[in-house]
Amino acid sequence: MSVNIGLVGAGTVGGGVVKVLHNRFSYFRDELGLDIKLSRVVDKAQERFAQLPVGDAVCSSDINDILSDDSIQIVIELVGGTGFARTLVLDALKKGKHVVTANKALIAKHGPEIFEAAAASGVSVYFEASVGGGIPVIKGIRESLAGNDIYSVRTIINGTCNYILTRMTAEGLPFADVLKQAQEKGYAEADPALDIEGGDTGHKVAILASLVSGGYVEYESFPVEGITKISKDDIEFARELGYTIKLLGVIKKNNTGLDVRVHPAMLHKGHILASVSDVFNAVLLEGDAVGQILLYGRGAGELPTASAVVSDVIDVVQNIKANAPVRVPMDYYRTGRRKGIIPADQINSRYYLRFTVSDTPGVLASIANHLGEQGISIASVMQKEGTGTSGVPVIFITHCASESGVTRALSLVEKENYVRAQTQLIRIED
Amino acid sequence: MSVNIGLVGAGTVGGGVVKVLHNRFSYFRDELGLDIKLSRVVDKAQERFAQLPVGDAVCSSDINDILSDDSIQIVIELVGGTGFARTLVLDALKKGKHVVTANKALIAKHGPEIFEAAAASGVSVYFEASVGGGIPVIKGIRESLAGNDIYSVRTIINGTCNYILTRMTAEGLPFADVLKQAQEKGYAEADPALDIEGGDTGHKVAILASLVSGGYVEYESFPVEGITKISKDDIEFARELGYTIKLLGVIKKNNTGLDVRVHPAMLHKGHILASVSDVFNAVLLEGDAVGQILLYGRGAGELPTASAVVSDVIDVVQNIKANAPVRVPMDYYRTGRRKGIIPADQINSRYYLRFTVSDTPGVLASIANHLGEQGISIASVMQKEGTGTSGVPVIFITHCASESGVTRALSLVEKENYVRAQTQLIRIED
Repeated sequence: MSVNIGLVGAGTVGGGVVKVLHNRFSYFRDELGLDIKLSRVVDKAQERFAQLPVGDAVCSSDINDILSDDSIQIVIELVGGTGFARTLVLDALKKGKHVVTANKALIAKHGPEIFEAAAASGVSVYFEASVGGGIPVIKGIRESLAGNDIYSVRTIINGTCNYILTRMTAEGLPFADVLKQAQEKGYAEADPALDIEGGDTGHKVAILASLVSGGYVEYESFPVEGITKISKDDIEFARELGYTIKLLGVIKKNNTGLDVRVHPAMLHKGHILASVSDVFNAVLLEGDAVGQILLYGRGAGELPTASAVVSDVIDVVQNIKANAPVRVPMDYYRTGRRKGIIPADQINSRYYLRFTVSDTPGVLASIANHLGEQGISIASVMQKEGTGTSGVPVIFITHCASESGVTRALSLVEKENYVRAQTQLIRIED
Repeated sequence: MSVNIGLVGAGTVGGGVVKVLHNRFSYFRDELGLDIKLSRVVDKAQERFAQLPVGDAVCSSDINDILSDDSIQIVIELVGGTGFARTLVLDALKKGKHVVTANKALIAKHGPEIFEAAAASGVSVYFEASVGGGIPVIKGIRESLAGNDIYSVRTIINGTCNYILTRMTAEGLPFADVLKQAQEKGYAEADPALDIEGGDTGHKVAILASLVSGGYVEYESFPVEGITKISKDDIEFARELGYTIKLLGVIKKNNTGLDVRVHPAMLHKGHILASVSDVFNAVLLEGDAVGQILLYGRGAGELPTASAVVSDVIDVVQNIKANAPVRVPMDYYRTGRRKGIIPADQINSRYYLRFTVSDTPGVLASIANHLGEQGISIASVMQKEGTGTSGVPVIFITHCASESGVTRALSLVEKENYVRAQTQLIRIED
């Protein structure tokens, strides 16, 4: 007996899923003994159907065609967003259908409600494609690293930002120029805000933080900062100091709580994440048994994302075949006993601080005094020649310091009349 | 009702498994709803038990204590080797017990017999720890990348060899000196043959090749070459040419068959595998949907390997709990329709050829002629000054050429009386 699938959303990823399923049906049947059938595809844009190898699937524009078809056991949601997609997913779960989704915003924002609905109906929600495209990080954490307390995750998980920072670094171009390039090449959306302001990374980090911490971590509960304020000067100064700037998602467990944040970070050139370039993604996990594990690959795109969706479909089909509809429960996501999120001003880090000041005697000493008074120890200083009246850049690299101390020092420095522009702060990750 | 486990072999990895299970019992019970009990541990060296958090487990030296205990559903085999371990695994399977093993030689050499026995009893054999320690590559291929035809695998999968080559590169020391260092540090065995002659890598590659090709690939069916003939000169010349030397496992599918081999290879410094250093392992997979995926981590050691064993145990326990004892069948491993192995002399590659010749006129032209006559196109040549009577090194880098042509050219060159030592051949991977 075949397992019937309904697919909602035949855009880029949806189209990829239709293609990958089409390519692999015979492998699933002949080698894995799994008889899978794509029985319905729904999309408002019906002209998409003709471009895809939909086979015998019934194509239509009405989601109720899938919801009311009792023969469909798995619904693949590739609509995106948290409005229509949320209703659709909840309706499908209520009808006892398993859900596979690539929707990071939906899982990040409505995960508990969705997993609650799935548990109530005795079905599963799989979401591998929501983080890191084809990189098997969700299954990795939930299953392959089950023997570990994962105490650290550092990740480059937004291809658009990584492409922009890589190009800025390689070509010495300013942010705005490279963003325009990325838009022309299709690596950035016409409205790039969700990527470049860190929101997309934040959604993915919220999901990963929930998985490794044993309880739901709300997207709104941790600081998220994008890459829009990174200047080509910062990238050049970083390079001179031996660092590369990446948009990083950071999750660390310590005695006081859970440190979760998204922000640009300077990584030493020898750091394994520093060489993750262009649209590639990587997740660096540290577990108490396994040590460091790096998972690297294409974090987006038609076929890489489809690869993850299809692997989830196979997982659900294996579960159905084994009569084990909920094999790896998500209960802890709703009920877990995770530690509290450490407030942003209580983290400790090393810092890159770029002051823009007038070229007058005593400025360096004044800044150094302000830092010293807050207990911030200086690792290195670099002063560059300035251009005209816009001020001279002075860069301080600190040893490990508290964020609150750094914030206080910066606010005191900025009251000094030698300051010509807002100070730039970039955290350094080891 | 708890799932009872019997562990055979309480050495390094076995001890690690006891520790990891001990650390995670409450997590498995409270968060995953899995009640797991380590009920028996067997080892000939009974003094090991006192060092480990075995809890209530009954410890003894007789394997029959586990085999005859009907309450034990999972046997963890960490004895190693293909004699006692094979009998033990087959006996456990015959008694309807699931098996989790880290034994690469056993799976590589006796996989079909073992999976046959498992299928006959309706139980599973899990072997994540047999390849790449804590890196989830087996589950990755079997489950997370199920949507893909994986057409290429390149892997650095032996920590001892990678440590030796990394140290030779960093310190300019000869092979023998670094091997001695590695033995002193515990990174190489007293009898290092299985590692440095490529056998261990070969076992792991045989397993990966079987998984990605859809049929059993015998260890004896493909060429395996170790690192013992790599000189510090080769490493230095490689460096000058922009390359790093690694012991590589290579699996490639093409129209004519399956290209499987283990040998030292030169990788361009920008290659993602070139930066995998010391005892770290990495597997670079390419699938038709996902593109490139890199999985990186510690490929050996007490706790990383234990991490993989424990994740397998959890998988089996989830299967048992779901009443799905064989969730992801291994049938194809026995019955698959894989393509034939391409004979070693039919592969195509780029080559590094180091000739050692007398410093006399016409030698370069003679070698170039021999290569040209076999249709081998030369990409670059480097001649170094020689030392005394031992000859002058002349290095040729070829464009892509057939191995048979290269072999013929080398045998003709070696008949020339200007040749002072055996020619070195190292394949170049892109």
